Amino acid sequence: MDREAMTTTRLRILIPLLAGSMTATVLADEGMWLLNQPPLEDLKDKYGFEPHGGWVEHVQKSCVRFGGGASASFVSADGVMMTNHHVGFDQLHKLSTPERNLLVDGFYAPTRDRELKCEDLELKVLWSMEDVTDRVNSTVAPQMSTAEASAARRKNITMIEKESSERTGLLSEVVTLFHGARYHIYRYRRYTDVRLVMAPEGGIAHFGGDTDNFEYPRYCLDVTFFRVYENGRPLRPEHYLKWSTSGAVDGELTFIVGHPYRTERLFTVDHLKFLRDVKITTILKRLWRREVQLLTFSARSDEQARMARSDLGGAQNSRKAFTGILAGLHDPALMNGKIAAERSLRAAVDANPRYKAQWSDAWDQIARAEETHRRLYERHSALSGRRAVIRSDLFAIAKDLVRLAEELPKPNAERLPDFTETALESLYLALYSPAPIHAALETDGITSGLSYLIDSFGAEDPLVRAALDGRSPRARAEALVRGTRLKDVAFRKKLAAGGATAIAESTDPMIRFAASIDPEARALQKRFEDEVESVERAAYTKIAAAKFAINGAGMYPDATSSLRLAYGPIRGYRQGGETIPAFTNMGGLYERYEKRGGVDPFDLPERWLDHKDDLDLSTPFNFVCTADIIGGNSGSPVINRVGEVIGIVFDGNIQSLVWDIAYTDEEARAVSVDARGIIEALRKVYGATALADELMNRG
Amino acid sequence: MDREAMTTTRLRILIPLLAGSMTATVLADEGMWLLNQPPLEDLKDKYGFEPHGGWVEHVQKSCVRFGGGASASFVSADGVMMTNHHVGFDQLHKLSTPERNLLVDGFYAPTRDRELKCEDLELKVLWSMEDVTDRVNSTVAPQMSTAEASAARRKNITMIEKESSERTGLLSEVVTLFHGARYHIYRYRRYTDVRLVMAPEGGIAHFGGDTDNFEYPRYCLDVTFFRVYENGRPLRPEHYLKWSTSGAVDGELTFIVGHPYRTERLFTVDHLKFLRDVKITTILKRLWRREVQLLTFSARSDEQARMARSDLGGAQNSRKAFTGILAGLHDPALMNGKIAAERSLRAAVDANPRYKAQWSDAWDQIARAEETHRRLYERHSALSGRRAVIRSDLFAIAKDLVRLAEELPKPNAERLPDFTETALESLYLALYSPAPIHAALETDGITSGLSYLIDSFGAEDPLVRAALDGRSPRARAEALVRGTRLKDVAFRKKLAAGGATAIAESTDPMIRFAASIDPEARALQKRFEDEVESVERAAYTKIAAAKFAINGAGMYPDATSSLRLAYGPIRGYRQGGETIPAFTNMGGLYERYEKRGGVDPFDLPERWLDHKDDLDLSTPFNFVCTADIIGGNSGSPVINRVGEVIGIVFDGNIQSLVWDIAYTDEEARAVSVDARGIIEALRKVYGATALADELMNRG
Repeated sequence: MDREAMTTTRLRILIPLLAGSMTATVLADEGMWLLNQPPLEDLKDKYGFEPHGGWVEHVQKSCVRFGGGASASFVSADGVMMTNHHVGFDQLHKLSTPERNLLVDGFYAPTRDRELKCEDLELKVLWSMEDVTDRVNSTVAPQMSTAEASAARRKNITMIEKESSERTGLLSEVVTLFHGARYHIYRYRRYTDVRLVMAPEGGIAHFGGDTDNFEYPRYCLDVTFFRVYENGRPLRPEHYLKWSTSGAVDGELTFIVGHPYRTERLFTVDHLKFLRDVKITTILKRLWRREVQLLTFSARSDEQARMARSDLGGAQNSRKAFTGILAGLHDPALMNGKIAAERSLRAAVDANPRYKAQWSDAWDQIARAEETHRRLYERHSALSGRRAVIRSDLFAIAKDLVRLAEELPKPNAERLPDFTETALESLYLALYSPAPIHAALETDGITSGLSYLIDSFGAEDPLVRAALDGRSPRARAEALVRGTRLKDVAFRKKLAAGGATAIAESTDPMIRFAASIDPEARALQKRFEDEVESVERAAYTKIAAAKFAINGAGMYPDATSSLRLAYGPIRGYRQGGETIPAFTNMGGLYERYEKRGGVDPFDLPERWLDHKDDLDLSTPFNFVCTADIIGGNSGSPVINRVGEVIGIVFDGNIQSLVWDIAYTDEEARAVSVDARGIIEALRKVYGATALADELMNRG
Repeated sequence: MDREAMTTTRLRILIPLLAGSMTATVLADEGMWLLNQPPLEDLKDKYGFEPHGGWVEHVQKSCVRFGGGASASFVSADGVMMTNHHVGFDQLHKLSTPERNLLVDGFYAPTRDRELKCEDLELKVLWSMEDVTDRVNSTVAPQMSTAEASAARRKNITMIEKESSERTGLLSEVVTLFHGARYHIYRYRRYTDVRLVMAPEGGIAHFGGDTDNFEYPRYCLDVTFFRVYENGRPLRPEHYLKWSTSGAVDGELTFIVGHPYRTERLFTVDHLKFLRDVKITTILKRLWRREVQLLTFSARSDEQARMARSDLGGAQNSRKAFTGILAGLHDPALMNGKIAAERSLRAAVDANPRYKAQWSDAWDQIARAEETHRRLYERHSALSGRRAVIRSDLFAIAKDLVRLAEELPKPNAERLPDFTETALESLYLALYSPAPIHAALETDGITSGLSYLIDSFGAEDPLVRAALDGRSPRARAEALVRGTRLKDVAFRKKLAAGGATAIAESTDPMIRFAASIDPEARALQKRFEDEVESVERAAYTKIAAAKFAINGAGMYPDATSSLRLAYGPIRGYRQGGETIPAFTNMGGLYERYEKRGGVDPFDLPERWLDHKDDLDLSTPFNFVCTADIIGGNSGSPVINRVGEVIGIVFDGNIQSLVWDIAYTDEEARAVSVDARGIIEALRKVYGATALADELMNRG
């Protein structure tokens, strides 16, 4: 479950169900468009909007890729960059000290000398793109095996990237688009001198906490401002987004530009049914169980509640997200749309003899792979992943050690992915982490995992019998946690150094426990890779090629963390017979605060209570629009037709979670902070006049 | 799930997995013994205890059956009766007024004229018992069918009861014991004038609330005192239990006398495996899901939290209880004990040709029935019960109306059990209840139920397709709740009056929805009754007869709510490597209060905060012992060898929940309030000097 579990909040959450794809027919305001292939015709036809010549380039160069993959944008002539509070969270955490908890208290630097420099933050601005498909494929020959072709491409890509970097001085990366149908080179400007200007308190940035996450109406000031420096001076960016003075109105067309991480809209109907019938229901079944287990554990004492807090938050967030996706899959409108689209694509393939010969078997190949996956899934997913269903760090460490002993002697190319030379560093980081291990939480997690294995595989299953070693789940868990020496980092290092012999001879109970489970886990993983994953990959390459051939350039590729443009009007929706208006205002924030009795997560920072009377409570605070976004879009600017900032995206509602596999706009919405709410808060709550003036170009 | 779901707290909780049975070999302090067949030999052998001649009769006549089936005892010469606060809960609720909430504030009548009279409480004291097996079976002939034999017995029982009542003037009831191997007549004295003397605040009676329920260590004053009157004067009971002046010590032998409701210790190994592998895992799977659903619903607003509170509490309590039972079934010690016992009983049966011919096929019959039940269970249990998995009152009402139209025209004897003439009153009570129906909770419950049906039966299942009617679960639920007129009681009455025609012609969407599900529910119920339930019943009658023949009188029958004696020493236990001492004290109460920050359910009543310094904090407060109890024992006195009160049972720890199917004493314990803690609280916290003096015979 590890890989699917989403342990952070908001739009940074990623659900990589399977990589790569693209859509067949574009519905409504669907689409995460490449900046070098913007949907100009659709915008003209649907909204009568024709951006002027430099519009797209200006927007592209105003946008920023923040750290590993979130979004941000330049919003002042002097290099102020805006992103979400939850995107800047790690930086705020690192800049905090025991005396100054920025996450709780917020921060504002009224003058530049008081800005706080981030230690390890990298920003990238996409400067140019170019289609290099032909060069990437230039040495691929028809008689090559898949592995040979892949190696040939890899070699070309390395060469293209190196040549581009040397020639342009820009960081150059080849990105795979349309599931390998196209390769583009992306060139970036890099910035590493980034300083914190302003962050609100966590309490207002995430007002409503996990309770309101993925919900709407919302009242969050999920924004943070940094300033980018170059050569010790504030950057004067060639492009930055101007702040809208008037703000947006209901129904107005908006654009969202950022880095959606991953979508899987190529999935066939059989594959979606596998998700609906098997994968997501199984994940949810485990999450419900785990959430209740962690709540029960937490209820016992405040200490236990602290131990379990992060696991519990992760489980709840994942549960909410998967519930949203499953609700989409249970919606006949979505499924019928997928069925119709698939039927028409297959008909188009079959109508062309050349297409038919190349691609028409792809759907049935997926169907057969999913049949196999249905049989494998419960057992494979229960045992795969670093912790499998055994939610214990000690077990994960034991499993790593067992596998390390087996993998290290092999040639690099034959090792499991987590054990290759390049992956070893992060493996050792986890393996030798001195992070505290809570015996009570470990025992509870192993007990629950063993009970799950009994429920799921049966009490008489050989693996279950070996795992339990003749005891009850709790007795076994207690004996394992009490008996293992893996709590001691030095012991782990000694075992790792001893290699396969040390593991084989170790009497440590947790090592023996992991060793008893691992052979079947490996066997299942191999079956999964051979009989499911590789079949899917080959078939989706065909389907993608078919779509590309039939639908041509009027397509957007599945999200891959590259820069994209989405669009759609600000628009409320109907939910459960109720109309949800597009905008909330600051008055609504205080109403919700009062209605919930100010109890966490609905408590407000002191400043917000003190300055309530100073605020114009009719100021718009959050709003929703139909633009097509997903995890990774967090921090993306929301802009109007003239390219001005009217807001910043920070979440999607629960109905939007299904956008992972299909776009709908009946109820699904992107959720943003309104630019006017930001300015009102900066001026009236934080006295951040200098920053507000700078944003409004009154500096 | 309705029938298994346990919606009340503590030991009143009943899990009737299947009725009637008895044990093979008696382990440790196992046994809920008949008062007319006390385990004298065991007591002598194991504890060197030989009660004097009148001991058992004195104890029996000091004990009281409270209302429908809980336990109590006389504890003063002037008719003071002690039971649990949670047993007296309903009476305290009824005696409360808007100005005087006894459940929150507690109550004490310092003088008799200030006692509060209960309106509808009946007490029974068991006065005499007699074996009437031969008379019950006197007219049963070998050639009779099961139904004929049953009717013959029923007729004899009615005659025996009538004759006994007329002759003795005592309320007389024939009880079925040893699964029909024995019948005893029980004669009771009845009391109906009962007045409230003292009740503590709910906050101290249930300190720790649902969080601590089934846990230990505990700190609860779960006790309430009434006084019984006769002819307008306090009753001077012939027998009452004296209060111990010295209290109990660790390791001391205790006796618990009360009314355990039901145990199922006769279950065969195959039947237990069905529980372990199918039934309880399925129930828990639904409970985890439901708990998370209700928590999510509750988090949205305080109003919603109030709507869902009772459902949520019920789900959490059931989840805790079933988790405890499943943990027992996952314990190899328990299962291996059951296997060994079964093997030896079967060997004894097979060794005797007459026994073999009569009974040896019983175990295989159960095995086959459980095979069938495994195939039926998921679908049958999802659709059976009043609400099935559709947690909606409106759905239950619609289902009742649909069935009523079908059942009423039939002869009484052919109707479903809930629709016979005698059952109709309570059916109409539920059907025409003006209790508020919360649309939001209904919609959420139906959405979740429909999603469950998709997950469980598959999206393409005909019943699922009919239930969804082409919509998503949420859209369907919203349409049903919005569209139905069943919120209106008058409409329900009109439909009921219209009979089958009105139902057939009704276009009410909830009626149509229920009508689309009911035929399969009925068909599955019939298969369950024919292929599982009736087979089990016949086979268990054989097994019980075999056990009775082989083990004879040294046995106790399964609990049936009749008066029983259990015994066992006060003894702590080891849990998770930790030693849990047998006793807690009043100081521990305040420590726990402080450690949990005094936050609900760990807040203390004002009086307890005010009087902390007055208390001797070393006073024992709660304790555990190994005596064999179960739901229905709530309020039972705990007495010492000389028959003095040393405490009152109010709960079992979570490990004791498995006592339903098997006794273990490694960790399982009964939990009681210590008599010394009661007196200390009465004197120092409540100033209830008169009552304390009366209990201590210093009046």
